[in-house]
Amino acid sequence: MPSHLALLSCLLVLLLSLDKFLLHYLKRRWFSAGSGAKGPAKSRRSMATAKWSETAMLVIDMQKDFVDPAMRSPMLVAGGEAVVPTVAEAVAVARKRGIFLVWVVREHDPSGRDVELFRRQHYSGGKGPTVKGLKGAELADGLVIKEGEYKLVKTRFSAFFATHLDSVLKTAGIKNLVIVGVQTPNCIRQTVFDAVALDYEKVTVLIDATAAARPEIHLSNIRDMKNIGVETPTLEEWRR
Amino acid sequence: MPSHLALLSCLLVLLLSLDKFLLHYLKRRWFSAGSGAKGPAKSRRSMATAKWSETAMLVIDMQKDFVDPAMRSPMLVAGGEAVVPTVAEAVAVARKRGIFLVWVVREHDPSGRDVELFRRQHYSGGKGPTVKGLKGAELADGLVIKEGEYKLVKTRFSAFFATHLDSVLKTAGIKNLVIVGVQTPNCIRQTVFDAVALDYEKVTVLIDATAAARPEIHLSNIRDMKNIGVETPTLEEWRR
Amino acid sequence: MPSHLALLSCLLVLLLSLDKFLLHYLKRRWFSAGSGAKGPAKSRRSMATAKWSETAMLVIDMQKDFVDPAMRSPMLVAGGEAVVPTVAEAVAVARKRGIFLVWVVREHDPSGRDVELFRRQHYSGGKGPTVKGLKGAELADGLVIKEGEYKLVKTRFSAFFATHLDSVLKTAGIKNLVIVGVQTPNCIRQTVFDAVALDYEKVTVLIDATAAARPEIHLSNIRDMKNIGVETPTLEEWRR
Amino acid sequence: MPSHLALLSCLLVLLLSLDKFLLHYLKRRWFSAGSGAKGPAKSRRSMATAKWSETAMLVIDMQKDFVDPAMRSPMLVAGGEAVVPTVAEAVAVARKRGIFLVWVVREHDPSGRDVELFRRQHYSGGKGPTVKGLKGAELADGLVIKEGEYKLVKTRFSAFFATHLDSVLKTAGIKNLVIVGVQTPNCIRQTVFDAVALDYEKVTVLIDATAAARPEIHLSNIRDMKNIGVETPTLEEWRR
Repeated sequence: MPSHLALLSCLLVLLLSLDKFLLHYLKRRWFSAGSGAKGPAKSRRSMATAKWSETAMLVIDMQKDFVDPAMRSPMLVAGGEAVVPTVAEAVAVARKRGIFLVWVVREHDPSGRDVELFRRQHYSGGKGPTVKGLKGAELADGLVIKEGEYKLVKTRFSAFFATHLDSVLKTAGIKNLVIVGVQTPNCIRQTVFDAVALDYEKVTVLIDATAAARPEIHLSNIRDMKNIGVETPTLEEWRR
Repeated sequence: MPSHLALLSCLLVLLLSLDKFLLHYLKRRWFSAGSGAKGPAKSRRSMATAKWSETAMLVIDMQKDFVDPAMRSPMLVAGGEAVVPTVAEAVAVARKRGIFLVWVVREHDPSGRDVELFRRQHYSGGKGPTVKGLKGAELADGLVIKEGEYKLVKTRFSAFFATHLDSVLKTAGIKNLVIVGVQTPNCIRQTVFDAVALDYEKVTVLIDATAAARPEIHLSNIRDMKNIGVETPTLEEWRR
Repeated sequence: MPSHLALLSCLLVLLLSLDKFLLHYLKRRWFSAGSGAKGPAKSRRSMATAKWSETAMLVIDMQKDFVDPAMRSPMLVAGGEAVVPTVAEAVAVARKRGIFLVWVVREHDPSGRDVELFRRQHYSGGKGPTVKGLKGAELADGLVIKEGEYKLVKTRFSAFFATHLDSVLKTAGIKNLVIVGVQTPNCIRQTVFDAVALDYEKVTVLIDATAAARPEIHLSNIRDMKNIGVETPTLEEWRR
Repeated sequence: MPSHLALLSCLLVLLLSLDKFLLHYLKRRWFSAGSGAKGPAKSRRSMATAKWSETAMLVIDMQKDFVDPAMRSPMLVAGGEAVVPTVAEAVAVARKRGIFLVWVVREHDPSGRDVELFRRQHYSGGKGPTVKGLKGAELADGLVIKEGEYKLVKTRFSAFFATHLDSVLKTAGIKNLVIVGVQTPNCIRQTVFDAVALDYEKVTVLIDATAAARPEIHLSNIRDMKNIGVETPTLEEWRR
């Protein structure tokens, strides 16, 4: 066997054996050239890639009736409008990282028959908060569901209550959740506590991309979530 | 107190005391005049009215991909098309009786990420059985959801699995279920067994408004349901 | 028709029209004679009887590892021991009223395999908080399950999470819940929010028969529960 | 570069490229030397080890009231007693393979308040089928729960219905289920269908370690389970 043939086969095997790693490296080198990332930043991003494929972001109840004062909905969350830009920014970061995005919304029957008992009085004449098809059920201006993202309809506070969300997430290999939206003491917190009960390994609430009627309500709930092991960074801390 | 005043007050009290019953009677008398109902029939209907307000009919999976051979869907139920007219008739009877109608359908994400694992291979390129928005997810020709009826989306066999159906039914005072649709060994049976587990008092399956791939599959499942106390009349027997 | 006849018939009708109320009143008068109850108190109790048969009291996590400092459990709730007497008193009142009592407890496998992920590090060598059969899983001294009462084992915060509690309560005709035990931000609150999601008509938390690690945690959670329609009396207010 | 150097580097790369497989092979060769296993048997067992750590066996309802005619229980499954030895043998095989064993049993309140509605008439005077603490709730003679195995109490047909079984299995890394016990059309089948709905990758029913009242009931249910992708070997086929 002549030496150049041996060398050739050697290189071939080398290439084949490195397949995934090499391709991965080249892809990153070529496609992220414009991002200016260098050295350590790069390796951090690489570990992140693995991590983010096991992470989903739940965007909760960012609908006009909850966050847009113009709707004059009885369900308006006082602090909701203020966090729309931060939620939008968090969504943008999630998309860049390849995180699976789930848009959790309420959509109710015009009769109100699928609403919590204590809220049914808000429904009559085919109208009421977040009735399916009405304007109040739409996402807040500036928020859009893109292809490949998932819309999940719920009828109670928790995104996991009587829905198939856990199945969608678990069969997609999701182990970690990042949660944004409104409002902290109800839909955010119930989703978070159910996520812990359902054995997600890491649950993160972005404290400036979530909101309640008043700051002290927001903060006391963040405190309680921290106490059961939930991470509570700001968007800025989380995006680093 | 003069006698006519006494009589007047007497009549007034009589009217007030009879309130509901009288009003009910008059309403029936006036509004059902054209129906030709007489004597015993009337009283039977009256008892029925009470009963039917506690009954819901679940129409399961009557979607084109399941019952319309023209769709060429891998999910086609061989015996499905044949029962469409009986299902339509059962729905008509339910409407006449004032029974609450729930249209249970599958609607899946184009990616198939919310489908059972063993069926995910059917989804690619944004297509697959009963994908939300595609023709195969529509109700079979001749079946229409009317105002006041409820559409419930599910992603597994049982209409109760990871859905809010039980809440909608129980808070509407529903105690009895009548079930029609396809197919007997999977979605029908799983819904029926879950209904029994969820403590519905009477579960009825209309045996000629349900279907399977082959008659012996249909019948063996009807036998098993009978064995746990489910009623299994024909549409004709049920409508009497 | 002479006026006295008219008056007579008038009275007769009046009596008939009052039927239920009158009969109810007479029954109470005759059958509860021996109870020493008098006047207004009596009628209040009567209405109550009806109400209490549709009410259940959930006593949550009143186990040694949660409320007895002597156990030196990592799960000890700082404010727990102080409310044991009030819980015992609430239980006594419930028994007197004929309220259905459900004792909700955690009982875990010695391996910790059925505990929340973030608490599994507490289990090793067959020991850990509220392991089934160990002393820490027993009810606090002074609390005893009597015949006709129900023990329900749970493995997560909410008494309704992955348990058959809802079925036991709903098939017993229970519509209202009274909740006591520990601790407010976790097991109490999650049970309360799930009860609201599960359509119980009235949910009551006795604020001095529940406790948290610190008063401000207790109070901020009471505030949030009030905000979704939960009643929050003291034991004294509730027993009146 | 001389040809032998090239060849050497070529081999080195080849070895590195095979990394996992080779290391795996060597590890097995070195560490299992003492076990007396040889050739093909060894490698088969090794692959199996990986597989079995992700497999759980559910032993369902093998309680005296279901399989022991001496109990004279209304719940006796006619074909149940005959499969006790096969179930015991299947359990022995599972233990040898290191499969996680879950003993699923019914244990009911003496009042019957946690039983399906259509069976409550069997409970009175503190007695009834599989009442907790009574002899009928015990495992059939010859079956014993060993340390490290798990006992799960259920109150409905499916082992997953309103229980925390899914959490125990998923957090233990279980992906595959092997199911034995009684009876095929009810508890076996409902558990199997729920397992499919809950996204277990492989569900296996041992057809001679499960039983129904009559053979044709058993077989028609096996047929239906096969039709949704369930594997249905005999114990002999499965143990190979």
